[in-house]
Amino acid sequence: MTSETLPSNWQDLVAAKRHECEHKIPREWLLSAEHLALAQGSPCLLEIDLPRRCGLLSEVELDLTENYTASQLLVKLASGQSSSLAVTMAFCKRAAVAQQVISCLTETFFPQALERAEYLDDYLQREGKPVGPLHGLPISIKDSFCVEGVQSTIGYVELLKDEPATANSALVKVLLDLGAVLYVKTNIPQTMMTADSENNIFGRTLNPHKTTLTAGGSSGGEGALVAFRGSVLGVGTDIAGSIRIPALCCGLYGFKPTIDRIPFGGQVSGAVKGIPGLVPAAGPLAHSISDLKLLMSSVIANGQAWKYDSAAVGVPWQTVPSDINANESLTIGVLAEDENFPLHPPVKRALDRAVQALTRAGHRIVRLGNDYEAQSLAYVSRLAFQYFIYGPRKDLIAASGEPVVASVGKAAAPMFSGPFPAQQDLGPFDTIKVLYEARQRINDAWRQTWVDQKLDVVLAPGAQSTAVAHDTYGWPSYTVIWNVLDYPACIIPFGKASKELDPEPMTTFSDTQPDYHPDEVNGAPCAIQVITPRFQDEKCLWAADIIDRALAIYGKE
Amino acid sequence: MTSETLPSNWQDLVAAKRHECEHKIPREWLLSAEHLALAQGSPCLLEIDLPRRCGLLSEVELDLTENYTASQLLVKLASGQSSSLAVTMAFCKRAAVAQQVISCLTETFFPQALERAEYLDDYLQREGKPVGPLHGLPISIKDSFCVEGVQSTIGYVELLKDEPATANSALVKVLLDLGAVLYVKTNIPQTMMTADSENNIFGRTLNPHKTTLTAGGSSGGEGALVAFRGSVLGVGTDIAGSIRIPALCCGLYGFKPTIDRIPFGGQVSGAVKGIPGLVPAAGPLAHSISDLKLLMSSVIANGQAWKYDSAAVGVPWQTVPSDINANESLTIGVLAEDENFPLHPPVKRALDRAVQALTRAGHRIVRLGNDYEAQSLAYVSRLAFQYFIYGPRKDLIAASGEPVVASVGKAAAPMFSGPFPAQQDLGPFDTIKVLYEARQRINDAWRQTWVDQKLDVVLAPGAQSTAVAHDTYGWPSYTVIWNVLDYPACIIPFGKASKELDPEPMTTFSDTQPDYHPDEVNGAPCAIQVITPRFQDEKCLWAADIIDRALAIYGKE
Repeated sequence: MTSETLPSNWQDLVAAKRHECEHKIPREWLLSAEHLALAQGSPCLLEIDLPRRCGLLSEVELDLTENYTASQLLVKLASGQSSSLAVTMAFCKRAAVAQQVISCLTETFFPQALERAEYLDDYLQREGKPVGPLHGLPISIKDSFCVEGVQSTIGYVELLKDEPATANSALVKVLLDLGAVLYVKTNIPQTMMTADSENNIFGRTLNPHKTTLTAGGSSGGEGALVAFRGSVLGVGTDIAGSIRIPALCCGLYGFKPTIDRIPFGGQVSGAVKGIPGLVPAAGPLAHSISDLKLLMSSVIANGQAWKYDSAAVGVPWQTVPSDINANESLTIGVLAEDENFPLHPPVKRALDRAVQALTRAGHRIVRLGNDYEAQSLAYVSRLAFQYFIYGPRKDLIAASGEPVVASVGKAAAPMFSGPFPAQQDLGPFDTIKVLYEARQRINDAWRQTWVDQKLDVVLAPGAQSTAVAHDTYGWPSYTVIWNVLDYPACIIPFGKASKELDPEPMTTFSDTQPDYHPDEVNGAPCAIQVITPRFQDEKCLWAADIIDRALAIYGKE
Repeated sequence: MTSETLPSNWQDLVAAKRHECEHKIPREWLLSAEHLALAQGSPCLLEIDLPRRCGLLSEVELDLTENYTASQLLVKLASGQSSSLAVTMAFCKRAAVAQQVISCLTETFFPQALERAEYLDDYLQREGKPVGPLHGLPISIKDSFCVEGVQSTIGYVELLKDEPATANSALVKVLLDLGAVLYVKTNIPQTMMTADSENNIFGRTLNPHKTTLTAGGSSGGEGALVAFRGSVLGVGTDIAGSIRIPALCCGLYGFKPTIDRIPFGGQVSGAVKGIPGLVPAAGPLAHSISDLKLLMSSVIANGQAWKYDSAAVGVPWQTVPSDINANESLTIGVLAEDENFPLHPPVKRALDRAVQALTRAGHRIVRLGNDYEAQSLAYVSRLAFQYFIYGPRKDLIAASGEPVVASVGKAAAPMFSGPFPAQQDLGPFDTIKVLYEARQRINDAWRQTWVDQKLDVVLAPGAQSTAVAHDTYGWPSYTVIWNVLDYPACIIPFGKASKELDPEPMTTFSDTQPDYHPDEVNGAPCAIQVITPRFQDEKCLWAADIIDRALAIYGKE
């Protein structure tokens, strides 16, 4: 569509885009009316096993998409035991099925993906070696990443007027150089600043565990797609929890690294760059810690990411992290619940059960108080919120006349917990200075706690709640704190909400925080969060792995 | 001196401070009138061998201060072959002699240093092992670092009203934990933003190679003290060349690392923090690459610097850098001379001779053009200058009524070479945004050149000139560019200016750039600069070492 032929009102722009997207799904991959109806009548979508029941995937394709980690698929691919064409075809089909029932995709480019897979298969046969460590593996990416020839609208109608990308994002270049196959981009919220991945172009992404609940955001399409196993490994971005929230909502592992360890450059964004504030990080969502490590270690490798992105940190991935105990005995600080952000019973239960399991496994548990006001979730949240709102912003919503979606309209704020860190009548330079000093106090308080308590990691909830009803998620206090600190943080899925175990509702007496409704969230995934100081990404995943294994052994209900 | 008894005018404040400082040098270490006169009559101070001639140092002390690298001294100290007391005494005495003839110090704390040395000697004897890898080694530090009980005035009379520091800077804590002995702090320019280390409190630091020439700045006291061998290893800071300029002026090795690899926190500064702009880095000055590596590797070690400073980068020092050729064959990009900043003949000669030597040694030389306007010295310099002036500043000079020193009064600017990157009538947020985008273009241009040319390092002059007459140094275009890019950069001393070899004067036809006067700079040290991309500090020093050894073999005049 060239600019001359563009429709003039937002509804027509959207209709044209939807038409285009729908027609990119091959007819033979469309679900029958019967299967669509079945899906619509089954909130717990994963339980009905639609991919098998719909008959669109072969037994081999079901096996390839369900029974292997990305690392295991790579072994099959590198040895020629599976072709990239077969693996890519399987994930393309499964992603197409997912899209029809949970709206997790924005762009699909299946023909290009299959063509690349064939090229990679030929290469392997011809050269006798893989292109790189991700040879032949399909990887899904958030819509904000640019792929040559594909639009990046990040859910803004205004950006439908833009031409397809003429260059790849830095990470896309890296992934292609490593041998990966890209086949879909995934859905996000309008503004990318809410936990509900809904926008006026691509609709609302549903949580495949329970479609009445949010899939999380802003990388919600990734969360839903990977949970549906329409992708084995996805990449999102996270400025307040946008990788971790979908991970915890969708029962996945998700990792927010230190800023710029994964190259972030060349993405489309509504933010004004360069103004001091929180900075997003790119990172993986997957079904295992080992696949999180796979993405991190492949992309970073011996520190070459700077060649793709000037801002990327040029330090190698440490296969064996520094400063670890050979005996794998951890000192684990447990974050205190903040009274301003009370935990829902299933979240509290999961955390308590994790602490018990880790104690049984022989780790040292340190209950953290709030030694310093500056390190409290409430204060840190207020700082983050002020950073989000104090500077200039582009209004990409008003530009096209599209309406604001519900979750953007009712965006939560933490300001009930206290005042802004910087007085609101200060000029730009003074505001920047005061916010910087406030952030330094937070950094210093957490560093001091870490050193004083000799912590290896902090264990924390990922959120006040599990996935909750659409547009009710609230302010992401338990994730955004680690963005303020730029600390790596990993979500580990652990257990499920149960109305039998936690039958009593709980109210937060708040307009902007979700209440606990036992029936509503029954069966929703629970999770814990593992955190290390800045740049200790390797140690974070090393410890998360130890914790994950301990939970598997000692954490049974 | 408590605030009640403070004199009210700036001259009295200065007089009191000078009196205090002079009386901290033991009477028995004072030079005779005869030796003082000799020194004053000998511009080439190093040649008259004052430390030996003045009779204040024993043969052993002369030997300890002259004939070993810091690494070699550490072997003696750890083995008990030399005591820390003996080594510390030797450097205290030699620093005291230096101070009397080249004014390189601000604060001295000899008694505390000797007491600590005794403690360390006792510890070694008692425990049978050193406190840490820097056990017993005297290290000198720039005045901006805080040492408990010692003032940090950074050359501002206003700060004479402040109490002595009540806490150590982060790096000071690290150095002490590693076993080092601190004994002096070193002189800087008023504002720390010129290349002439003069202020109204501590006077002007002279270059011991030739006292009519600048010692450089802002870490000029370090440069002069280390060149005089009153210190074997010093730490400075660098936001535009402040480590490298004294190094090249004083014939030393100097290394500006990537920002925050060496903990920077807890220093006194006149800057308003948190406003986007250039950020200073701390780093070493020494007589050898191995001693630069010693400081870097000891302080960073396995990445523990974050425990001392929230901003410090928590990645380990790589003993073997990543991405290096085992055969030590380098691809070396040679920076083009910028017509706006023409090189003095001795600088050009040193660079040409280095290129010839490196070619003979088998390295691949790539002559860099300016592929992109954004990567030119002129454009980058203008960006740096605008970053220095656009934001709010504290006026610590006016606060006390002290006059501006000459080098501050005539501070050079690069604006003759073109316009400001950001229009000067923009508001703060827009200015920040435009400067950020301009810097991104610079970063991208240099990254692209690096990747396209497959460079290992860039070889460049350290400056337009060698050390020149006081207050004439000009704008530091050849150093500040690597601060804008946050690229590690190492100065290697190489040869000397010679009026025989370069007899023709050269004029820059500029008020703000130094002319070449063959007689004036005859005998001044020359230098080259070796640069790598951000975070490749290990590779920078690895390559600098290879280059330094090649120059020793192939670089003879």
